[in-house]
Amino acid sequence: MGEQEPKEIRVFAPATVANVASGYDVLGFAIDEPGDEVVVRYSDKPGLRITAITGDGGKLPKTVEGNTAGVSAQDLLRHLGKSDVGIEMEIHKKMPFGSGLGSSAASAVAGVYAVNVLLGEPLTKKQLLPFAMTGEASADGAYHADNVGPSLLGGIIVIRSNQELDISELPVPENLWAAVVHPDIEILTKVAREILPAEISISTATQQMGNLGGFICGLYEEDYSLIGRSLHDVIAEPFRQKLIPEFYKAKQEALSHGALGFSISGAGPSVFALCEGEKNAQKVASAIANVFNDNNLTNQIHVSRINQQGVHVVNN
Amino acid sequence: MGEQEPKEIRVFAPATVANVASGYDVLGFAIDEPGDEVVVRYSDKPGLRITAITGDGGKLPKTVEGNTAGVSAQDLLRHLGKSDVGIEMEIHKKMPFGSGLGSSAASAVAGVYAVNVLLGEPLTKKQLLPFAMTGEASADGAYHADNVGPSLLGGIIVIRSNQELDISELPVPENLWAAVVHPDIEILTKVAREILPAEISISTATQQMGNLGGFICGLYEEDYSLIGRSLHDVIAEPFRQKLIPEFYKAKQEALSHGALGFSISGAGPSVFALCEGEKNAQKVASAIANVFNDNNLTNQIHVSRINQQGVHVVNN
Repeated sequence: MGEQEPKEIRVFAPATVANVASGYDVLGFAIDEPGDEVVVRYSDKPGLRITAITGDGGKLPKTVEGNTAGVSAQDLLRHLGKSDVGIEMEIHKKMPFGSGLGSSAASAVAGVYAVNVLLGEPLTKKQLLPFAMTGEASADGAYHADNVGPSLLGGIIVIRSNQELDISELPVPENLWAAVVHPDIEILTKVAREILPAEISISTATQQMGNLGGFICGLYEEDYSLIGRSLHDVIAEPFRQKLIPEFYKAKQEALSHGALGFSISGAGPSVFALCEGEKNAQKVASAIANVFNDNNLTNQIHVSRINQQGVHVVNN
Repeated sequence: MGEQEPKEIRVFAPATVANVASGYDVLGFAIDEPGDEVVVRYSDKPGLRITAITGDGGKLPKTVEGNTAGVSAQDLLRHLGKSDVGIEMEIHKKMPFGSGLGSSAASAVAGVYAVNVLLGEPLTKKQLLPFAMTGEASADGAYHADNVGPSLLGGIIVIRSNQELDISELPVPENLWAAVVHPDIEILTKVAREILPAEISISTATQQMGNLGGFICGLYEEDYSLIGRSLHDVIAEPFRQKLIPEFYKAKQEALSHGALGFSISGAGPSVFALCEGEKNAQKVASAIANVFNDNNLTNQIHVSRINQQGVHVVNN
């Protein structure tokens, strides 16, 4: 490694809201905060090693195979034939597990992106998608790009096919803001999946399809009213709301305070509203948080524009 | 009626392709030919009367309530408080019943539009949608805008909600052509509905949603490849193909001749391909027709751009 300059790369991968009401398993968007950080540097010892993990409450093992950042990075190194390059990795979790904000996806994205930058960016961001997917699948068991995609690329993405990893970036209306509130309970993705029925009626499916179509049109046309009319989830929300205390009260408050729409972020328990403008998003976030506060449920508020940058290098 | 000038209005409402592979019950587009014509003129006898029907093989009764053109026109007249105005209507069917090309929808659209024009256009085209829907529902029993919408407005439309009649017009890439082939068999919409399962797996629904999202993006981005990758129907086609002789052979021929995608038009038996350019559409249409010809199944070919005009007045 003698000829390589010693350097350190620190990257930030944003949290993400998957499903987005009308896009169960096919839509996701990124927000500014929270997110996970990964630091990588060259080392004289060959191979990838994880030297520190913070913010995980001691839950993650320090083996490369034991967390999504290690797995995605290792998968990239293998692909590039660079498994023997000595790399140290630190993982700084800045959001809770099981929050519905794509925690494992953010780490997977941060891990693979950090290593790619360290190596001089042999691949483009979009080319990193399959490695990040492998990383997330190691924790999640499922192979979905609805968190990994937006955490990597930023913006709002629609997934034509998870199997073929065919994803498209949708336009983001300038004044579209997200109000995300995370109540302090944990929902395991496994539980959130098992609560759904195996089958739905064709009429339920076509309702969801209509709303998905309306939502995508609304983004392209910057038609906030159409976006709002389209933010309905008839597939997952009716079942998963049971896992979130006072869900419908929070929804009612969000809508009565002017949110375009409101639903569950990913598998929950985080909830999100989309709003026109920052001021409205702040007001809606407070109204949602108040419902949780009234039930002695501590929570964190995250208000931001749709994050269009995705994973990026941050200064040390 | 003395002060009204005697005049006659002749309108043409185009055939339509509903479902469009990835948009079961939520997508539809119009084609140039075939289509139905309706002629209206003032009469001294009060009320709406149907004086002639051609092209129906004697199947349609001449009562106003007996066909979709009469019902939609009557519904408009009632709404405008003009049920007593004397109007004669002729209906000229130019496409077969049960063809999957929106025959009853085209008549409903032509009927209401002709009367609206005769009365000096008190309503806009889009405002005529509910009356045309009522007309089609009188024949079809179902309340879907996927044929009525594009026959009225032209172009490609997506229906956010049939119940709320919330529809959006999608952009039409300039070089997008349709190759439609109608084999001479009749499929009753009722039979085509009953052959579908009541329920589908969530994973089937999300596949279809991904393809719908990709298709709409593809239209906005004029990305013919994405349009092609998105033209898959995993909801209706696997069941309804059984009603169409040699369906998969026709599909294979269409795709191997360069079609972007191929599926069933509405409830069938007509099939359609979307193609890039007229030349390819002609080639694809011939390849499909040859499959039917080889099975001694007579058929009609309709090749056109997506019709962006919708229903319109034609010269006598």
